[in-house]
Amino acid sequence: MLGPRVWSSVRQGLSRALSSTVGGWASGEGRKVDISGIYPPVTTPFTATAEVDYGKLEENLHKLSTFPFRGFVVQGSNGEFPFLTSSERLEVVSRVRQALPRDKLLLAGSGCESTQATVEMTVSMAQVGADAAMVVTPCYYHGRMNSAALIHHYTKVADLSPIPVVLYSVPANTGLDLPVDAVVTLSKHPNIVGIKDSGGDVTRIGLIVHKTRRQDFQVLAGSAGFLLASYAVGAVGGVCALANVLGAQVCQLERLCLTGQWEDAQKLQHRLIEPNTAVTRRFGIPGLKKTMDWFGYYGGPCRAPLRELSAAQEEALRLDFTSNGWL
Amino acid sequence: MLGPRVWSSVRQGLSRALSSTVGGWASGEGRKVDISGIYPPVTTPFTATAEVDYGKLEENLHKLSTFPFRGFVVQGSNGEFPFLTSSERLEVVSRVRQALPRDKLLLAGSGCESTQATVEMTVSMAQVGADAAMVVTPCYYHGRMNSAALIHHYTKVADLSPIPVVLYSVPANTGLDLPVDAVVTLSKHPNIVGIKDSGGDVTRIGLIVHKTRRQDFQVLAGSAGFLLASYAVGAVGGVCALANVLGAQVCQLERLCLTGQWEDAQKLQHRLIEPNTAVTRRFGIPGLKKTMDWFGYYGGPCRAPLRELSAAQEEALRLDFTSNGWL
Amino acid sequence: MLGPRVWSSVRQGLSRALSSTVGGWASGEGRKVDISGIYPPVTTPFTATAEVDYGKLEENLHKLSTFPFRGFVVQGSNGEFPFLTSSERLEVVSRVRQALPRDKLLLAGSGCESTQATVEMTVSMAQVGADAAMVVTPCYYHGRMNSAALIHHYTKVADLSPIPVVLYSVPANTGLDLPVDAVVTLSKHPNIVGIKDSGGDVTRIGLIVHKTRRQDFQVLAGSAGFLLASYAVGAVGGVCALANVLGAQVCQLERLCLTGQWEDAQKLQHRLIEPNTAVTRRFGIPGLKKTMDWFGYYGGPCRAPLRELSAAQEEALRLDFTSNGWL
Amino acid sequence: MLGPRVWSSVRQGLSRALSSTVGGWASGEGRKVDISGIYPPVTTPFTATAEVDYGKLEENLHKLSTFPFRGFVVQGSNGEFPFLTSSERLEVVSRVRQALPRDKLLLAGSGCESTQATVEMTVSMAQVGADAAMVVTPCYYHGRMNSAALIHHYTKVADLSPIPVVLYSVPANTGLDLPVDAVVTLSKHPNIVGIKDSGGDVTRIGLIVHKTRRQDFQVLAGSAGFLLASYAVGAVGGVCALANVLGAQVCQLERLCLTGQWEDAQKLQHRLIEPNTAVTRRFGIPGLKKTMDWFGYYGGPCRAPLRELSAAQEEALRLDFTSNGWL
Repeated sequence: MLGPRVWSSVRQGLSRALSSTVGGWASGEGRKVDISGIYPPVTTPFTATAEVDYGKLEENLHKLSTFPFRGFVVQGSNGEFPFLTSSERLEVVSRVRQALPRDKLLLAGSGCESTQATVEMTVSMAQVGADAAMVVTPCYYHGRMNSAALIHHYTKVADLSPIPVVLYSVPANTGLDLPVDAVVTLSKHPNIVGIKDSGGDVTRIGLIVHKTRRQDFQVLAGSAGFLLASYAVGAVGGVCALANVLGAQVCQLERLCLTGQWEDAQKLQHRLIEPNTAVTRRFGIPGLKKTMDWFGYYGGPCRAPLRELSAAQEEALRLDFTSNGWL
Repeated sequence: MLGPRVWSSVRQGLSRALSSTVGGWASGEGRKVDISGIYPPVTTPFTATAEVDYGKLEENLHKLSTFPFRGFVVQGSNGEFPFLTSSERLEVVSRVRQALPRDKLLLAGSGCESTQATVEMTVSMAQVGADAAMVVTPCYYHGRMNSAALIHHYTKVADLSPIPVVLYSVPANTGLDLPVDAVVTLSKHPNIVGIKDSGGDVTRIGLIVHKTRRQDFQVLAGSAGFLLASYAVGAVGGVCALANVLGAQVCQLERLCLTGQWEDAQKLQHRLIEPNTAVTRRFGIPGLKKTMDWFGYYGGPCRAPLRELSAAQEEALRLDFTSNGWL
Repeated sequence: MLGPRVWSSVRQGLSRALSSTVGGWASGEGRKVDISGIYPPVTTPFTATAEVDYGKLEENLHKLSTFPFRGFVVQGSNGEFPFLTSSERLEVVSRVRQALPRDKLLLAGSGCESTQATVEMTVSMAQVGADAAMVVTPCYYHGRMNSAALIHHYTKVADLSPIPVVLYSVPANTGLDLPVDAVVTLSKHPNIVGIKDSGGDVTRIGLIVHKTRRQDFQVLAGSAGFLLASYAVGAVGGVCALANVLGAQVCQLERLCLTGQWEDAQKLQHRLIEPNTAVTRRFGIPGLKKTMDWFGYYGGPCRAPLRELSAAQEEALRLDFTSNGWL
Repeated sequence: MLGPRVWSSVRQGLSRALSSTVGGWASGEGRKVDISGIYPPVTTPFTATAEVDYGKLEENLHKLSTFPFRGFVVQGSNGEFPFLTSSERLEVVSRVRQALPRDKLLLAGSGCESTQATVEMTVSMAQVGADAAMVVTPCYYHGRMNSAALIHHYTKVADLSPIPVVLYSVPANTGLDLPVDAVVTLSKHPNIVGIKDSGGDVTRIGLIVHKTRRQDFQVLAGSAGFLLASYAVGAVGGVCALANVLGAQVCQLERLCLTGQWEDAQKLQHRLIEPNTAVTRRFGIPGLKKTMDWFGYYGGPCRAPLRELSAAQEEALRLDFTSNGWL
């Protein structure tokens, strides 16, 4: 675990940097990292007393590593990151790094509310082995998070991050869509490599691909529900909660899209929509973890204030899988 | 123009029918009409004194008839139907019918707020030559338009309509998404043949296709911005405001999708997003009509309270076309 | 009932007026009409076959006329005006006029989607006896109803209306708040006398009172749920669905506010909130009409697509009255 | 500053408590603390390099202490608490405690996303001198924060807090209104003394007062824009950003309301609406801090990603004060 000394040194090193002016990067200094592919956003397993269960985390990862994922997202919204301490956030990433084969990309969620905290967390995430940082939009003051504020925020983070930065827009949680014009501006930053877009607006996804086509910039769909459609308009992969339980199927959908087998892709996509909605918008992380229990992973409890599902909800959740032939 | 007598006879004939109970239709009595293809939702041209300009309407139609559209939507949201009297609504449809080649489908918007008025308008639309009725969700009391209310409404309309019915969901105008479960139930009605969905949620469109796959039911995208994505998940066409000005391009996009040329389709789709947003969400009907003027059609003024664009808006509108190579 | 000839003459007379430019009114030509007080927005009774039941309408009015209301609103949102034909709208107002004592103000809802139709309806409402016109914001194209559009719309209507105009903002139905700056501009029109504001934002109501304080302009609360608070910030009355069933109580609340008995007013206001929500936002017109049946008025059915309440909803509705001591 | 040892001991002491079941409190064991009155939610001053400026904080407090406030809220939304580290949050409260006269209540914002973190922060806030904890609703997973989840969360916090708890609902930031039924249930907890409601829905405020009237429970308005209206329906005070700059005026408004001088209260309230909106919804904390600079306090910069106002915004901000006679 990182001690106070590490944090302190990180802070000292960054204080000057943070007060300097933004910008002045030189673009085009070589290709950015390729993040195309499928990623499960891993959940954080907890014990009955709500401690992080690192053993279960590793077990889940070993099982998930059998699928042809490009990598793993750690501390995305499904990782309950707002419920973890800073130390836990880093320790989880550290453990995942150790448990993963070297060729799997580790995208670590490092977003915090303040720019400074986000920079510090991003630097620390790099130190514990993250390959890239996935940075969610700040959200508490979302009413004031216009393009100027967000461009400044992400530019600072990307300037100071030792690892590539992936933008992360998830309006269902943040109440905020990272504006397209901000994405386009940020796509030119040499250390910003792409965006995970969870909003589900495929017109917007197509427009982002179109308007960043001259940049080395990649778009990942933020959910399996619109994965095929996202590929169709130019996305190159997805971060899919559903891949935590139907990993083979989500990877198969990727392959069908990439090889142009659109008819089979469509049939498979159709059968994934309801299960996907069930473990995301409809029943959230409690639904995802319950389903993981069914599929041979460790789901377990969420931290409070997230509650476990009622019996009726559990039944509805199951139906969304059985009616599509997955259970 | 229809006189009071026609209305009166329509009403008499329907009064008994409307008070009967809903349901009891036998499904599977032969294939429904095929509505697949591209449709421009035609605008209603007005003179400088805000009268309907039927001559300009016919001129527009003649020009538009050179494209391989499946047909035309008349009195959709772009037709300013809420600003027309009942007589004008029917007269416009009647004129369009006369101006169109017989093989072009005429989908007439016949939605009103009350079920009874919608039935009457639908019957009248059939009498003046509509091939199918496109029925928007009632919206003033949208807070109470749950699935039960909407299923009852559409069932009554479909029961009593002499022509097939197409559901029409356009939340940007109505504040209301026709719920998926209602769509699924209604898809079994022998006289309901499909839905025009303008919400742009491609996950929802895929789910509707999936859950109505055992019915003879078709989905049309309600906008060119997500047309490719809609095809990718199983839609069979689109009602596209943009087709009023870029008819050839929208038809080309259809052809590329239908023939599996997804790469070219993607490139074309990308270049249509901004122009499409400009003539729909961004600048509305005033933007569409202004663009029609540029492209050799008659756009002209809208009826009040819709206002014409400011010079700055007009410039922004133009930029959305020029920056994508269309002007 | 008005025949086609009346409509035609109305239209001819207005066509020139509508195409003239807006504005140029001279303010300050004498006091405007005083609309302060309480108004029930009367419901439209229907027979079992969904015909307007004018007899029941008159019976309800006779019972309601025993309370010290300032007048009655006819064809407000609670009057199901979107479900009535133009002829029915006028006939209802005509009948109400005949049934009412001359000293009761009759505010007739005359809003339509187009400016021209609104002008025609307003003129016709005056002809059948309305004392003032209550004009709801157009809403189908609410995305384009900015201040400029709405100022133009209401100015045209007020210019051409033979009777005073009351603005009407009801965002729950229209998706649109008439912007404060538009209200302030319109308050200067000599034929615009006030606003009914149903949004429930008392900060906004206070601001409107403040910014129109130099005009002869009055604000009515659009619901009994925030009536006391509205008086406290300067409103002069209310249009209250609840007054259709608890007329004495709403008038008593008015009196307590006007005489500065705020403590008693508060207690009474508290007991009216749940019943009021029940007959408005929670259960809508079906809830209001059901409650009217309980309180000795004729409620009866709504026109489709509005549905009657389920047994469970009816029970919840009743509880909102019993738990506050009204049933 | 609190060292790691304090945190560790806090955690140990709480771990058993957190895993016990909820409830079982005995109500009615004596009067709860009286929180009625006006509170400024103090801002957190930062230096040019974004460090907390404790000296400026104390200077502001000394100036503010001349007004008859009931106390001060520290780490409310205006305190930029999401941008502070845990240590900074506690240190700020500690400093405020030392700077304040003993008779001023110190309400410390102790809300975090997880229940456990909120409990720990609340306990720590008590240790550094807070008189009560103001606990904002968790918000990142607001889609799952139903009444059951929120009741569980607040009950745990209140069970384990050594100081009284004030609920805090601020939908503009959290996307979440603490449901009335949850408030009513929680009002019965012996350690929950009231709610700060910033939503501005006075119908809701009245209903909360009404439905908790048998409890010892108090409601504070969360903004000066609806302070008078809140008093009128039974609130007992307010937490008002505006009191940071117009402290005398907000206290005067309180006095006018408490002494029944409603006419003068109304006039004063009217003049406070625009300035209040300017330093809250319209221009946020950057607007509030800029105004503090004008009024002789230290406002200074916000932490990133909040940006300072543009010149045009600053001018509009100033106009909202000058046009109401405050500058």
